[in-house]
Amino acid sequence: MDDKKVSMAVVKRLPRYYRYLTDLLKLEVNRISSKELSEKMGITASQIRQDLNCFGGFGQQGYGYNVEILQREIGKILGMQNKFKAIIIGAGNMGNAIANYSLFAERGYSIVAIFDNNTEKVGKIINNLAVLDMNELENYIKNNRVDIAILTVPFQYTSQIAERVASLGIKGIWNFSPMDLRLSHEVKIENVHLSDSLMVLGYRMNKKIEEDKASL
Amino acid sequence: MDDKKVSMAVVKRLPRYYRYLTDLLKLEVNRISSKELSEKMGITASQIRQDLNCFGGFGQQGYGYNVEILQREIGKILGMQNKFKAIIIGAGNMGNAIANYSLFAERGYSIVAIFDNNTEKVGKIINNLAVLDMNELENYIKNNRVDIAILTVPFQYTSQIAERVASLGIKGIWNFSPMDLRLSHEVKIENVHLSDSLMVLGYRMNKKIEEDKASL
Repeated sequence: MDDKKVSMAVVKRLPRYYRYLTDLLKLEVNRISSKELSEKMGITASQIRQDLNCFGGFGQQGYGYNVEILQREIGKILGMQNKFKAIIIGAGNMGNAIANYSLFAERGYSIVAIFDNNTEKVGKIINNLAVLDMNELENYIKNNRVDIAILTVPFQYTSQIAERVASLGIKGIWNFSPMDLRLSHEVKIENVHLSDSLMVLGYRMNKKIEEDKASL
Repeated sequence: MDDKKVSMAVVKRLPRYYRYLTDLLKLEVNRISSKELSEKMGITASQIRQDLNCFGGFGQQGYGYNVEILQREIGKILGMQNKFKAIIIGAGNMGNAIANYSLFAERGYSIVAIFDNNTEKVGKIINNLAVLDMNELENYIKNNRVDIAILTVPFQYTSQIAERVASLGIKGIWNFSPMDLRLSHEVKIENVHLSDSLMVLGYRMNKKIEEDKASL
């Protein structure tokens, strides 16, 4: 499976395919055409065929897709078989929200520890994990498998903590600070920009306002 | 400005342009070429020119872009001049995190009220707002301008509450439940799927693992 030429636009749609296919499996749907999938997902059927062809197709003319196989294969492309282990740094509201978000476990990710530098938070239990002191970070990572650091710390600490976890050998950072974090290291980083999604909503609402005005 | 044919892929990049241009303005950069912007943003210069051409260009050959004008125009396309007002429904961890996220105000959005049906949460102060009882929702929306409902409620209540706010005339819903909420009404909905972004990180980490294996 040569996926070297796969664009990030396609990759970003894969989790969505995964979600829909998982929902179909729960409904015991075993087989689906690109047309039906297209109607469900609000993507054109040709887009779906094109996307999945990047990874070798999976579909059969006249049959459609086998839901279980397709879901499993997309899961593999997304790396779910690695069962990545993550720590959360920052036990504030966002850290709490993420620690309690049960869907990550369903997607094969486990949260194995939570850290904070606030002594009032250290020792508090969040979803069965006691918050650890930041001083224990080096020791913890040395003695446990940790693949991903989820950063939910204030903006001004983000770069410094990112450098720290990268130097400890962490391979992935999921960053919730409103900045495009970049590191020189070989660390993969996904920056979550919540306000981007709100602004897309604003765009769509504004477009409707403009259209309504124009049709008066 | 005819933006009827603008694809959602372009729209989704606009908040990112807005962020970068805002950062440049803070650094008192007044003018930038598509090449420089491209290096900063990690998008090709031709992609940038193509994206901005969808809205009429803004650039001048040999000069580049005027940062202030471009930022303001993109802000307008994104509808920031509407100064949308939002309520949060669900005063849990995610609701708290969003209520305390100062960036939304910078982007022109204001959180005007927070609701919860848990009497233990009602009356609690979150970022200067007292949590209101869900029973007051109808009354509040009748007497105050509310454009957007931010839903941070448990999965099983999401559809029902979405229908309720839509029937009260709310024009936009920002949904944090892990589902693709759809309404028959003329309500614009953005569904935030946090796990999608984590899975994209997983894809990129997995790809590196595969490449490292291949190069052994």
